[in-house]
Amino acid sequence: MATRVAVMGATGYTALEVIKILLRHPHVEIVAVTSRQDPAPISSVHPSLTGQLDLVLQNLSPAEISARAECVFSCLPHGASADVIPELLRGGARVVDFSADYRLGSASVYEKWYGHKHPDPERLGVVPYGLPELYRDAIRSADLVANPGCYPTSVILPLSPLLKAGLIVAEDIIVDSKSGVSGAGRSLKLTTHFPECNESVSAYSVGRHRHVPEIDHILSKFGGQETSVIFTPHLIPMDRGILSTTYSRPMGEVSEEAILDCLRDFYKDEPFVKVVDRLPATKDTLGTNYCHLTARIVRGRVVTISCIDNLVKGAAGAAVQNFNLMFGYSETTAL
Amino acid sequence: MATRVAVMGATGYTALEVIKILLRHPHVEIVAVTSRQDPAPISSVHPSLTGQLDLVLQNLSPAEISARAECVFSCLPHGASADVIPELLRGGARVVDFSADYRLGSASVYEKWYGHKHPDPERLGVVPYGLPELYRDAIRSADLVANPGCYPTSVILPLSPLLKAGLIVAEDIIVDSKSGVSGAGRSLKLTTHFPECNESVSAYSVGRHRHVPEIDHILSKFGGQETSVIFTPHLIPMDRGILSTTYSRPMGEVSEEAILDCLRDFYKDEPFVKVVDRLPATKDTLGTNYCHLTARIVRGRVVTISCIDNLVKGAAGAAVQNFNLMFGYSETTAL
Amino acid sequence: MATRVAVMGATGYTALEVIKILLRHPHVEIVAVTSRQDPAPISSVHPSLTGQLDLVLQNLSPAEISARAECVFSCLPHGASADVIPELLRGGARVVDFSADYRLGSASVYEKWYGHKHPDPERLGVVPYGLPELYRDAIRSADLVANPGCYPTSVILPLSPLLKAGLIVAEDIIVDSKSGVSGAGRSLKLTTHFPECNESVSAYSVGRHRHVPEIDHILSKFGGQETSVIFTPHLIPMDRGILSTTYSRPMGEVSEEAILDCLRDFYKDEPFVKVVDRLPATKDTLGTNYCHLTARIVRGRVVTISCIDNLVKGAAGAAVQNFNLMFGYSETTAL
Amino acid sequence: MATRVAVMGATGYTALEVIKILLRHPHVEIVAVTSRQDPAPISSVHPSLTGQLDLVLQNLSPAEISARAECVFSCLPHGASADVIPELLRGGARVVDFSADYRLGSASVYEKWYGHKHPDPERLGVVPYGLPELYRDAIRSADLVANPGCYPTSVILPLSPLLKAGLIVAEDIIVDSKSGVSGAGRSLKLTTHFPECNESVSAYSVGRHRHVPEIDHILSKFGGQETSVIFTPHLIPMDRGILSTTYSRPMGEVSEEAILDCLRDFYKDEPFVKVVDRLPATKDTLGTNYCHLTARIVRGRVVTISCIDNLVKGAAGAAVQNFNLMFGYSETTAL
Repeated sequence: MATRVAVMGATGYTALEVIKILLRHPHVEIVAVTSRQDPAPISSVHPSLTGQLDLVLQNLSPAEISARAECVFSCLPHGASADVIPELLRGGARVVDFSADYRLGSASVYEKWYGHKHPDPERLGVVPYGLPELYRDAIRSADLVANPGCYPTSVILPLSPLLKAGLIVAEDIIVDSKSGVSGAGRSLKLTTHFPECNESVSAYSVGRHRHVPEIDHILSKFGGQETSVIFTPHLIPMDRGILSTTYSRPMGEVSEEAILDCLRDFYKDEPFVKVVDRLPATKDTLGTNYCHLTARIVRGRVVTISCIDNLVKGAAGAAVQNFNLMFGYSETTAL
Repeated sequence: MATRVAVMGATGYTALEVIKILLRHPHVEIVAVTSRQDPAPISSVHPSLTGQLDLVLQNLSPAEISARAECVFSCLPHGASADVIPELLRGGARVVDFSADYRLGSASVYEKWYGHKHPDPERLGVVPYGLPELYRDAIRSADLVANPGCYPTSVILPLSPLLKAGLIVAEDIIVDSKSGVSGAGRSLKLTTHFPECNESVSAYSVGRHRHVPEIDHILSKFGGQETSVIFTPHLIPMDRGILSTTYSRPMGEVSEEAILDCLRDFYKDEPFVKVVDRLPATKDTLGTNYCHLTARIVRGRVVTISCIDNLVKGAAGAAVQNFNLMFGYSETTAL
Repeated sequence: MATRVAVMGATGYTALEVIKILLRHPHVEIVAVTSRQDPAPISSVHPSLTGQLDLVLQNLSPAEISARAECVFSCLPHGASADVIPELLRGGARVVDFSADYRLGSASVYEKWYGHKHPDPERLGVVPYGLPELYRDAIRSADLVANPGCYPTSVILPLSPLLKAGLIVAEDIIVDSKSGVSGAGRSLKLTTHFPECNESVSAYSVGRHRHVPEIDHILSKFGGQETSVIFTPHLIPMDRGILSTTYSRPMGEVSEEAILDCLRDFYKDEPFVKVVDRLPATKDTLGTNYCHLTARIVRGRVVTISCIDNLVKGAAGAAVQNFNLMFGYSETTAL
Repeated sequence: MATRVAVMGATGYTALEVIKILLRHPHVEIVAVTSRQDPAPISSVHPSLTGQLDLVLQNLSPAEISARAECVFSCLPHGASADVIPELLRGGARVVDFSADYRLGSASVYEKWYGHKHPDPERLGVVPYGLPELYRDAIRSADLVANPGCYPTSVILPLSPLLKAGLIVAEDIIVDSKSGVSGAGRSLKLTTHFPECNESVSAYSVGRHRHVPEIDHILSKFGGQETSVIFTPHLIPMDRGILSTTYSRPMGEVSEEAILDCLRDFYKDEPFVKVVDRLPATKDTLGTNYCHLTARIVRGRVVTISCIDNLVKGAAGAAVQNFNLMFGYSETTAL
């Protein structure tokens, strides 16, 4: 018996990726794909699904969706997502939310960074953050999971064990991230027009990126001390991949081996996080749900380097990993 | 009357770039291009010179070169360059050296980072560092100029005015740089094989890159206080361009405007360094001798972002700028 | 005394390229750059012009433009261009038109392919086609020149000498062209959104591309026999460059050497067209006004391969080459 | 019970791809990966296999391999492959050969194009060509299958039904193909050095590419009339993907709909070949075993356009499709 799933907001890149993964899943039936645009075969919007998924994009209400699907992958933008999720849950569906709506712990922080009141503030702080490496048990039993942001995943995985173990100082962390262009979505913008961003690197949203409060929140919560990072994202001329380089101060005298051992120990049983000796490249994780990470001590500073595919471990792969946990399937199924 | 110039080690990318710029120079005649390989028309090695430069690559001795040329652009690798430069100078030629051989201040530091004894240690510390924005007067009268490294140029331009003005702390500087692949040269390596580095980002030489002592040396010398940086270079899937993001601590209370004013004031008369308000992209400087840079304060940290074309302002353009100064031409000729 | 020039429709890529070339021109002063958008410094639209051109984009009438400028480079889209050019000419300006409006020989062919009546049909067939290699003398004395399309330039250069010499059959020519994305312009489209066209190749406008009648018209006119080509353009994930591969039948027994000799002879004094022995790559001509071309006989068919930079020889470089001829400057100035 | 498989010559890109697909296969156990280089964990050569395949590259003899494995995927280069395959077969293993050694029908044609005598000429013409869409039944029962070349797959799929149906003329076919760089393999060459081939397009091996006799042979054999094509491959700056554009003459009066109907009918039950109405892009098939193809009539000529991923349907995916047929698994398993 397959689990019936729906994908809301199915015209973007993360939705396409989650559909591709779900098509490989032996225990899933995709029963609906939704969009506010006019009905059209999904393969007309995503030609790569030709012959693979024979569904029409429909503009369904939350009630209609939860009547059909046991699990909903919501790829709606922030704000729009929290507008419909309460009704999906009332209708009996369980939800993996790709938006940022349930990732933060506080409605006031949300309002400050996202510019509008949170539509469903009671659930903030209750919904588990969908990083199984940190919150596996909470995810298993949850009806709603907040799927992590792509940058936060790449940053939280290397830093949270070090903070938890007290090996690095929480108040002095610099994060310099590099992302492929698919992370900017499918909406047309001059900055992602090919002849503008190809053969070019630039920083953007310096000091203002909305993943900052998410990183701060999870690192603080999991690490046990108030943490705030200096975060600079950069746009790289490639489709996919995030590499994050972090710079932090060791707490006292710490060797490179001690840092690596802490990471290796923390992730020793994790199927998708690999602590490597070499310097990882994003291509090593391209198209996979893996995170490869390593660490070095440089002139007394701890440098970590981590790589993920932003659309897989940074979005759709993590979502299916969460789905597997929620519905009792083997965590690595289809991944 | 044109100045007669030669290009040594003319098969690589920086040599090609300096030739292209010199072909636009109204006061230059290229009289020789050298290589240790078998004689061949230079257009057989660089097809883009077809119909533009009708010279044969020759394996000439330093004496032969200095007999023909008033100025030599040496694109030889480090070590090889300092082996021949003393003889070129004795022969009466003036030299712009693209290698690292004369950039450092001390033979022992050189030996530590480059792994062999310096062949011409007496000149270290005397040869001017070819960054006209810092050392214009010394360059004018020099017979030998040490053309700067590409990463150092991108780092020294934003940081040196701030250090000189005492606006940032010298002991806590992090530099995260991103470079196009041409910076790795024309020698074949797996890491620069297209299917390996395309659609991928990686860090390399973490804590061990040879541009570290060069950055430290010039920042310390020009800024007036011992400076050492944490430097991480990254390989980006594009041909050209370097973007360097630096993170430093302000000395006391300093506003973003004060940082920007310091930079604007320092570079107000410079033809090739532009302090911009927007976040610059490497493409804004592609194919030009310009550096675009800006600064932000993020959570109390000074963040600078600077962009150059690694083959122009980071190599061949700077070399011609130095040449123009040395030979009394307008500094911007051909640039 | 510099020639005063204006660039109309200055926000696109060909306009940027013509400005960059004109900034290197010793006998040109750019006096106006126009756009229908709100007035703004041109460097805010083209950051790469920062510090290089201190003009504000203005919405000027044709009369105002021709009052200021001796030569106008019109980068307006087809239709819009022929709407204003008659008035520019009446005002005394000479014009290089980047649009397709004056390239064809007949108003009815124009209407068929462009879907609207030609606003200035009398000039069709009189205005010279701005390919100096074919029509140099007519260009010198013209007040209006129709700057060629990028694809047509890459196709007409290899084929016209062979047709003229009667070496190939006019009725059986296949042209398979590959272009970088800048050829599609700066307007946002899904097909030129980075994550769509990066790492992908596709054909487009098969059998319907508007450069077909232009290629047919010039090949027929110059070659002296009615010629019609099968033309398929492809979009390639790179910024710039066109490579056109053509397949035609030799007229009788013709050797590869005879084909190459015909081309070499035709272009022997041309500064910008180089017949090469090797198989050319678009990168050999990147950023230059050169066309590299060659030919092979394969199983009795003539195959030509030609490369240009679509924004230079395919647009802005050709325009300046035409300008140089029109105003009596050396044809290669600034190129 | 899983089928035990080995991958010979496991350090290249097609081997990596076949390993990745086999790791998703529920009925396969990879028991050996071989290479003539020194023993090393396969993840040191292919970092993307970290944590996924814990095998050491070994230099095994054919006898050792066939003792361990029921099926061998041979990724050895041509020549080397036919040297060992007879012994593998004698040892009882069944083999999918990625090389060209068993694709042609005649030892003399092989010698002409490959420059050496065929080591195992008796099997030529007997071994089935591994394109299940044409030779499914022969593949099922074969002990050795000649996995098709990447270009041939992209050309034979659109043309063979049209030739078979007598809709196009066999003697006048032009094929213009565009391939990503992974097709050139993992060996270092200047032409595939990133700064050489990035941002560039070029033709290569014009009239001399070794896939010509393979295309001719299969089209002639399957179509039933002697066929010879004019074939020009081009190198495109992307990792993966082949788009082939073919130009042929219709036999008599044929409509576009008749061409498309012939293709649709031929492939109506095929899981991996999709005849589409739109113009396909290689990205539509990226990472998949699909071929998307379409056709147009342009000025009386039949134009077909087909897209595959050269490493999947053009190599490793086809190999697993063949494996599935040979070992009785569902043909689409793991694909």
